[in-house]
Amino acid sequence: MNQHLDSAINTIVTALRAVREHKPLVVNITNYVVMNNTANALLAVGASPIMAHSRREMTELMTFAGALVINIGTLDSQWIPRMLFAVEQANINNKLVVLDPVGCGASALRTATSRQISHAANKLLIRGNASEIIALAGEKGQHKGVDAEDSSDAAVGAAHYLLETYQCNVVVSGATDFVITPDRDIQLNNGHAMMPYVTGMGCSLSALTGAFAAVGEETGLAAAAVLGVAGEVAAAQSKGPGSLQLNIIDALYQLDEKTLLQRIKLS
Amino acid sequence: MNQHLDSAINTIVTALRAVREHKPLVVNITNYVVMNNTANALLAVGASPIMAHSRREMTELMTFAGALVINIGTLDSQWIPRMLFAVEQANINNKLVVLDPVGCGASALRTATSRQISHAANKLLIRGNASEIIALAGEKGQHKGVDAEDSSDAAVGAAHYLLETYQCNVVVSGATDFVITPDRDIQLNNGHAMMPYVTGMGCSLSALTGAFAAVGEETGLAAAAVLGVAGEVAAAQSKGPGSLQLNIIDALYQLDEKTLLQRIKLS
Amino acid sequence: MNQHLDSAINTIVTALRAVREHKPLVVNITNYVVMNNTANALLAVGASPIMAHSRREMTELMTFAGALVINIGTLDSQWIPRMLFAVEQANINNKLVVLDPVGCGASALRTATSRQISHAANKLLIRGNASEIIALAGEKGQHKGVDAEDSSDAAVGAAHYLLETYQCNVVVSGATDFVITPDRDIQLNNGHAMMPYVTGMGCSLSALTGAFAAVGEETGLAAAAVLGVAGEVAAAQSKGPGSLQLNIIDALYQLDEKTLLQRIKLS
Repeated sequence: MNQHLDSAINTIVTALRAVREHKPLVVNITNYVVMNNTANALLAVGASPIMAHSRREMTELMTFAGALVINIGTLDSQWIPRMLFAVEQANINNKLVVLDPVGCGASALRTATSRQISHAANKLLIRGNASEIIALAGEKGQHKGVDAEDSSDAAVGAAHYLLETYQCNVVVSGATDFVITPDRDIQLNNGHAMMPYVTGMGCSLSALTGAFAAVGEETGLAAAAVLGVAGEVAAAQSKGPGSLQLNIIDALYQLDEKTLLQRIKLS
Repeated sequence: MNQHLDSAINTIVTALRAVREHKPLVVNITNYVVMNNTANALLAVGASPIMAHSRREMTELMTFAGALVINIGTLDSQWIPRMLFAVEQANINNKLVVLDPVGCGASALRTATSRQISHAANKLLIRGNASEIIALAGEKGQHKGVDAEDSSDAAVGAAHYLLETYQCNVVVSGATDFVITPDRDIQLNNGHAMMPYVTGMGCSLSALTGAFAAVGEETGLAAAAVLGVAGEVAAAQSKGPGSLQLNIIDALYQLDEKTLLQRIKLS
Repeated sequence: MNQHLDSAINTIVTALRAVREHKPLVVNITNYVVMNNTANALLAVGASPIMAHSRREMTELMTFAGALVINIGTLDSQWIPRMLFAVEQANINNKLVVLDPVGCGASALRTATSRQISHAANKLLIRGNASEIIALAGEKGQHKGVDAEDSSDAAVGAAHYLLETYQCNVVVSGATDFVITPDRDIQLNNGHAMMPYVTGMGCSLSALTGAFAAVGEETGLAAAAVLGVAGEVAAAQSKGPGSLQLNIIDALYQLDEKTLLQRIKLS
């Protein structure tokens, strides 16, 4: 197991170096609330963000993009077909789609749209919190007859159901992040309790996941580790979620490999 | 009168405690400019924001939301029917609608839309600055034959006209905030002169008003007091409106009852 | 030449004073990503921003606006006709249109839309980075048979082509900003290398260009100088692009003429 974790840590460090070197273009169809923050998070980590949604340019953009991030935070009847069209273009170009099913379970529209996108994407990674992942998996994703001890257990079970159903990787983020792949599950214990008080932290994680996917790290692990460590470093200097929001951008920009290696907590 | 003010102060402190305890869900249809800030303000005070607008999910969302905040800052022909539909759903669920008539008076569209929403909402609170409140009240809301001494007097007069016309509470915000209810008017002298240099401070006030309404404080007083005091605390540490914007989020998050009680200036 | 530069410096200082005195209204049709930042930049420099796009109010708004800023950062089939309608209203009122052709060249849609707006505007200033300006000028804007030494040379050549084609002023922003007018070209060497890591810095420059145009400074020079100097001052206090984003707002708000005069680097 230690060998697996050493290999995982190596993956993270290599991926961060690659993002900074190659500055991959990440196409984002995301929600109105977080566009500024996720663009800044991508810039700070070294990637090149473009927020675009028109079908009249998506075909071109996906030919040179490294990954597509779809976030349903402020969805409606106009945005859903744009999202599905963009997924088609990602498929044509063999690019990973990162789906952030924001609020999945809060409305039938969000649940149905998340499933529609999951079905449509050929290469898929889903990044959500426990309740979103559980809702996305739905009844069939519950451990029937087995009571999950807590919501993390239920979410990991649901994530494995999603993995099998959609042939995708899944990241369940929370106090502990779970990186779920066909090979193994990795737990990550970085981050800080103040992060959920900043809007769009999960959205930034999904965007960063796209940046790392664009340089070949398609599990979501590197993004979770980098944002988790940046969040810890930033929280130590923050009086509240206002300063935390910007200190995380600074920390992503400044993050060095030594700090990353010292702080990563995998198991 | 002192007894009234003591009771008002008690209302504020109790309401803040209730928001932090119950973390009420506030549905926001707001403008593109301020979505991030108002979501962060709601999180910082302890509430749960959702920015949503699709008619395909609003019916569900309003069944478990605590209040609806409608802000017309970047309105158009697509957003107006969404706003009106959301108001219908708030009515069905007997939830307060907080209307922020941004730029009312600057265009006929804004004035007409603000009135349309005001007519449609069964339970309504209007929160605007003096010129918006005066424009919303229109000619009939002017003290005919009586020259208002200043714009505050005119706005308070207009607010009373709105109260009678729409059976609503009104908050006129500015250097002095006026909280206008059927029972009495309360003046609040908190806040800081640098706050108008941060975009969307009024929008944050409207959003917070929704959070307090969701725990039963439907006059707007608690929101005005909490944001005013947080603004003062934050301004003392801010070099300009950039740092003020984030320091207010920190101050909302950190605000304790002692600070609140020491600083509230009611009359 | 010194006399020209002295005159240019005088123009900048006078324009900043005028914006702060007259607080001109600037109408912005801009992208979802930067609306908050550009509104804050306009407020911090002393102007009055309104973010509006509906055709149902644009006719009214442009009668009392000082300038129109059009930014195509998140364009689509719904936004393009709004932009063109707003340009018509600016023309009717003889107001300058500042075009920010974000991502021009990255898609045919962006290039075509930028040209369509450039053709439509009677009074026009184009503010873009080198690659956007080169893409907007297109093949005809290349120095055929002359190899540009670097991208700045190519961009300045393209800018002159745009000036002749559209009878407009052009600002090419980058490590060195080029202010291109029929009379002369001015180079500005302010700003900081960290600024491109903050999303929307160019968008803020375009918005500020609108503010200065509204008080009669229609070359883009004052905006470039003020933002460049504010960026330098802010960068000296910033650990990364997160803090830089807000420190620039503070610096715009605090900027005094002495600092401006000490730091402006024209040639």
